[in-house]
Amino acid sequence: MDLKDYITIVPDWPKPGIKFKDITTLMDNGEAYRYATDQIVAYAREKEVDLVVGPEARGFIIGCPVAYALGAGFAPVRKEGKLPRETIKVTYGLEYGKDALTIHKDAVKPGQRILITDDLLATGGTIEATIKLVEELGGVVAGIAFLIELSYLNGREKLKGYDTFTLMTF
Amino acid sequence: MDLKDYITIVPDWPKPGIKFKDITTLMDNGEAYRYATDQIVAYAREKEVDLVVGPEARGFIIGCPVAYALGAGFAPVRKEGKLPRETIKVTYGLEYGKDALTIHKDAVKPGQRILITDDLLATGGTIEATIKLVEELGGVVAGIAFLIELSYLNGREKLKGYDTFTLMTF
Repeated sequence: MDLKDYITIVPDWPKPGIKFKDITTLMDNGEAYRYATDQIVAYAREKEVDLVVGPEARGFIIGCPVAYALGAGFAPVRKEGKLPRETIKVTYGLEYGKDALTIHKDAVKPGQRILITDDLLATGGTIEATIKLVEELGGVVAGIAFLIELSYLNGREKLKGYDTFTLMTF
Repeated sequence: MDLKDYITIVPDWPKPGIKFKDITTLMDNGEAYRYATDQIVAYAREKEVDLVVGPEARGFIIGCPVAYALGAGFAPVRKEGKLPRETIKVTYGLEYGKDALTIHKDAVKPGQRILITDDLLATGGTIEATIKLVEELGGVVAGIAFLIELSYLNGREKLKGYDTFTLMTF
């Protein structure tokens, strides 16, 4: 199965000149969604993962079924103000301005082996922030998995030293 | 397993007087997350579901592993401006003001049997809007599943005539 057949390229979204990679046409196909998930599960099994962590909202779509298949838990990384209990926060730069991501302080236990998931590796800012959150809580980043990598944006530069797995490269 | 043991009650969040039911302590426990998911999967199997639909972001956390386990697809319902292709929209009332939810126009095919998932049935506004989106696209709501129902808010009133399943009632 070539998963790229299930990705829809949307021109000029969210801004002129951008060719957005829409994963919803992969997800709403049961076979393709399961196939993609199973690839990440196979990768994660080798890493002996205790917990899956993903940033909202598309990181949930990838990470939650992987966590379920592994019998692991899932901990969400969310924008500021969305998690109800005590959190830690990392601020990171976006193309324009700054944003912050948070995780519950008790979500990751020291020494736990963590798989980080997201749909897309672009410039890597979101995932870099997620790594910081996990490590600040004492978690060990055992692996990082994406559906898609936009290799021309060099997000891998930010992930040097981390075991990274992607299913599709554009 | 009593799933309520894994829910954390957070007083005065997001507003004074509200006892928020935090599901993250259920999700980050691999056993509890799998157990809860499997209950919904068992419910959904009887409904012969083609596609799972859930509103962002906690609806993804519940619905995505259910879709994976069923071998079904998952289609996200999102706030306006988040989905990249042609959508349909439903506006619904919140306690203060209004909000809108959207779904891709091609996400649901006419006649498909749909399971709708979310974490929480409170007043039912979000799910009522999600039902409207699914039905406008010709989908058949085969069932609706929640982790938690706040029965004192009477959300079921809005879901009359729909097959509804909840794992915990407060």
